[in-house]
Amino acid sequence: MRLPKKLQTPMIIINFKTYLEATGSRAVELAMKAEKVSQETGISVGVAPQFADIAAVSAGVDIPVFAQHIDPIRPGGFTGHVLAESVKEAGAVGTLINHSERQLRLSDIDDAVKLSRGNNLISCVCANNPSISAAVATLEPSIIAIEPPELIGTGIPVSKAKPEVITDTVKLVRQVNRKVTILCGAGIGRGEDVAAALTLGTQGVLVASGIVKAKDPYAIILEFADASKR
Amino acid sequence: MRLPKKLQTPMIIINFKTYLEATGSRAVELAMKAEKVSQETGISVGVAPQFADIAAVSAGVDIPVFAQHIDPIRPGGFTGHVLAESVKEAGAVGTLINHSERQLRLSDIDDAVKLSRGNNLISCVCANNPSISAAVATLEPSIIAIEPPELIGTGIPVSKAKPEVITDTVKLVRQVNRKVTILCGAGIGRGEDVAAALTLGTQGVLVASGIVKAKDPYAIILEFADASKR
Amino acid sequence: MRLPKKLQTPMIIINFKTYLEATGSRAVELAMKAEKVSQETGISVGVAPQFADIAAVSAGVDIPVFAQHIDPIRPGGFTGHVLAESVKEAGAVGTLINHSERQLRLSDIDDAVKLSRGNNLISCVCANNPSISAAVATLEPSIIAIEPPELIGTGIPVSKAKPEVITDTVKLVRQVNRKVTILCGAGIGRGEDVAAALTLGTQGVLVASGIVKAKDPYAIILEFADASKR
Amino acid sequence: MRLPKKLQTPMIIINFKTYLEATGSRAVELAMKAEKVSQETGISVGVAPQFADIAAVSAGVDIPVFAQHIDPIRPGGFTGHVLAESVKEAGAVGTLINHSERQLRLSDIDDAVKLSRGNNLISCVCANNPSISAAVATLEPSIIAIEPPELIGTGIPVSKAKPEVITDTVKLVRQVNRKVTILCGAGIGRGEDVAAALTLGTQGVLVASGIVKAKDPYAIILEFADASKR
Repeated sequence: MRLPKKLQTPMIIINFKTYLEATGSRAVELAMKAEKVSQETGISVGVAPQFADIAAVSAGVDIPVFAQHIDPIRPGGFTGHVLAESVKEAGAVGTLINHSERQLRLSDIDDAVKLSRGNNLISCVCANNPSISAAVATLEPSIIAIEPPELIGTGIPVSKAKPEVITDTVKLVRQVNRKVTILCGAGIGRGEDVAAALTLGTQGVLVASGIVKAKDPYAIILEFADASKR
Repeated sequence: MRLPKKLQTPMIIINFKTYLEATGSRAVELAMKAEKVSQETGISVGVAPQFADIAAVSAGVDIPVFAQHIDPIRPGGFTGHVLAESVKEAGAVGTLINHSERQLRLSDIDDAVKLSRGNNLISCVCANNPSISAAVATLEPSIIAIEPPELIGTGIPVSKAKPEVITDTVKLVRQVNRKVTILCGAGIGRGEDVAAALTLGTQGVLVASGIVKAKDPYAIILEFADASKR
Repeated sequence: MRLPKKLQTPMIIINFKTYLEATGSRAVELAMKAEKVSQETGISVGVAPQFADIAAVSAGVDIPVFAQHIDPIRPGGFTGHVLAESVKEAGAVGTLINHSERQLRLSDIDDAVKLSRGNNLISCVCANNPSISAAVATLEPSIIAIEPPELIGTGIPVSKAKPEVITDTVKLVRQVNRKVTILCGAGIGRGEDVAAALTLGTQGVLVASGIVKAKDPYAIILEFADASKR
Repeated sequence: MRLPKKLQTPMIIINFKTYLEATGSRAVELAMKAEKVSQETGISVGVAPQFADIAAVSAGVDIPVFAQHIDPIRPGGFTGHVLAESVKEAGAVGTLINHSERQLRLSDIDDAVKLSRGNNLISCVCANNPSISAAVATLEPSIIAIEPPELIGTGIPVSKAKPEVITDTVKLVRQVNRKVTILCGAGIGRGEDVAAALTLGTQGVLVASGIVKAKDPYAIILEFADASKR
C-alpha cells in the first residue's frame, strides 16, 4: 500500500499508549501540537491515540491517525474486539500491530496485515529484534518499527545504546523486502537520537513517553522534526 | 455501586459486538432506537458499542452506554489496551467484563471489577454457567449476566432451552450475594423469551444479534421492553 | 474429593517450577528427600515436578505427586496441551491449577477443577488475594493456595509481611466453603514462617524456591515439617 | 542444526496430540510400531508424544522423539511451563513449535527456535499458510511444517485438496531459506497422499489422526513409508 501524502518519510509516529496525559481531551490537544509541528516543518507526524479517542482526534486534526491495535477478525460476533472497519470509520488511516506491549501470534499478525490492506489501512508492525523484523518483512506490511523492549520507556535511545540492532535490522529486512518503510523506537528522547536513527538507515521514529510525558511536548516534537531534516 | 437512575431493573442491555450493522454511524442510529423505546416505555435500555463508537453514541443519546471490555490496567505504558479512564471520559457509565467472546483470567476479572468501582463504572460481568456465576458473585460486580456460550447467536433462547441454568444461577448467586443484579442472555429473540427470563428470577436480559441483526430493531426492542413490564 | 492417606493436614507441597535444580534426575533426588522427611516426621509432603518428570518421580517415591498445571481439555486433537488423563496415568494424584505464573481464565479454572474431580485428581487452585480465593472456593476445589505474587521468590514470608492477607482469605473462604483445605505460600523460607502460617488459620504451605534453591533442601524440608507439628 | 542420522529426508513425523489412543502405555506401543516400520524400510519416522510420556517413549524406542511444544523460557520460576532442558533430559531430540492448536506469539517462536538451537534440539515450526511459512523460514528453524488448519483431522489430504498451498509454500520458503526441511500435513491418510506431498516439493509429512486413530496404525505407517521411497 502506498503511503498517503501526509505520511512521507522521514516520519515521526507518536504512540499515545494509555497515558492519562494523552487520554480524552488531552489526546486531541497533543495531536494538535503534532499537527502544528508538521505544518511548520513539512515533516510527517502521525499519532496513535486510544481506541475511544480515534474519532475525536481524527475530527480535530489533519494528520495521519493510527489505531494502536486491531484484532484479526472480520465483522461479526466478537465482543470487546477491535474491528479494522471500526477504526477506519472513526477516522484512522492506519494501525500499529504487534507492539511489544500487545504482541500477537504470528498467524494473527499475518491476518491483521492482510485486513489492513483490505481496508486500505497503513499497517505499522512492531518487532523486537532483527530476526523478528525480517520475519515481519516477508508479510509485506507498510511499515516496520523495530523497538528493543528492554529500552522502551527508559530514555536510553536505541540509536545510541544498540546501533547494531538497527543496522542489523535494516540489513536483514532489505534482504527480503526492498520497499517497506523502517522505523525505530525505544528510548528516543532528543533530536540527536532521531538524527542517529536516520543515519543508521531508518526512515523515522516511533516514539511514546519521550513526547507524551515531556514537560513541553510541542518543543520535543519540533526538535524531532528539525532533526529529521537533512 | 448503586445503579444510576437511567438503569433500573428490569433492564435490557444491547451488546453491539463488532457487527457492521452497529458500527460507526449505524451504532448511533441503533442507540437512538433504544433510547426511543426507553423513553416511550420507561424501561431501562443500555447499549454497548465498540470502543471507537463510545464517544459518538454517548454524545448522541441519553441512555446508559457501556464499553464491551476494559483491561486490568492503570494509566501507563500499555499500547492497544483499553483503559477504564478512557472509556469513562468518552462517556461510558459502565462496562461489560469477561464476555464469553472476550474471557479473562480470574485475577483480571477481579482487577477489572475493582477498577470499575474505582472509576465509578457499572461492572457487568458475564459468566458461562451457574458455578462460574457464583464465583463472579463473590467479587461483587454491579451486574452478572449468565450466558451459556453454546446458545449465543443461535436464536434458541436460554430461558426456554435451559431454564434450569437460569434458576440454578439465581440460586447459587443468591447464596453468596443478595444485591447483585442478575441478567441472562443467549438466543433471546422474542418478547416471550424476555418474560420467561424475568419469571425465572433474573432482572433483565443482555442481548446482541437478536436486536442488532433484526430487520426492524426498534420493533424488537419495543417488544422486549413491553415484555419486561409486569 | 477426599484427600488420600498420604496427604493429610498439615501438609507441605513443594512446587519444583522449571528450576534446573529440580529437573530430570534432580527432580527424583529432591522428591526422595521430601519422602525421607515425610517418613521421619509423619507430616505429609507433596511434590509438583515438571510434566516430563512426573513419571520418574512417581516411580521413585511414595509421596503425593502433583502436576503443575492441566489444560481444560478432554482427550482429542490438542497439540502441546496437558491432559488430565495423561498426568494421571504418569502417576500424578493431583494438580496445581491457576498458579500465578500460569494463570487461567475463570471458565478454564472451573473446567480444570471439574476435570480433576472426574479424573480423581486432587485440585490445588492458587489465588492471588482474598477476594480471588473466595471466588475459587465456590468452585469447590480440594485445596486453595493463597500466594501474593509480589512476594513469590522474595524470601519475605507472606505469613510475616502480610498476615492480614492470610486471615482475610481464611475468613472469606470459610463464608462460602467450610471444607476446602487452605494453604499459603510466597516467601516461605524458615520453619517459623510455616508455624506462623498455621497459626493464622491455614493447613499448610505451598513452597518453591525456599526449598528447591536451598543449599540443603533436606534440612529445610525437615525444618518445615517439624514446625508443622503442634 | 544438522539433522541426526535417524532423521533423514524423506521423513514422517507422527504427532500423538492428546489422543487417548496415544497416551501413557499406548504412546510407547505406538512408538514401537513406528520404530518397526523405520527399521524395516529405512525411512525416518519420528514421534511427538505428550510431555509426560516423553521419558518412557524415549526409553522404549530408538527413533527421534519430539516434544509437542516448548515455552520461550529459561530455567527459573515458571510454574506449569515446558522447559527445553526438561524435554531434552527426558530424551527428546526435537520439538514441535507453533502447532496450529498451540500457536505462539511471533517473538515467542523466535525465542523457542533459538532455545532449541542452544539446547541442540531440532525445531519443527508449524505454519498455516505460505506467507506465514516464509516468515518462519527467516527464523531458520530445522524444519517447517505447513498445515492448513481447516483440513486438520478431516481426512481430506492437503496434497490433493490444496496442492497450490504446498507449491506456494515451497516457492516462498526457498526464496528466503534454501536449507530448511519442508514437511506438510493435514488430512494425510493414505500412501498416495504422502507420495503427492513429496512430488509437490516437500521432504515428508507431519501426521496425527491419520495414524493415531487408524484401526491398524502399523499398516498405515508402513504404507506411508513405502510411499516415501522413490
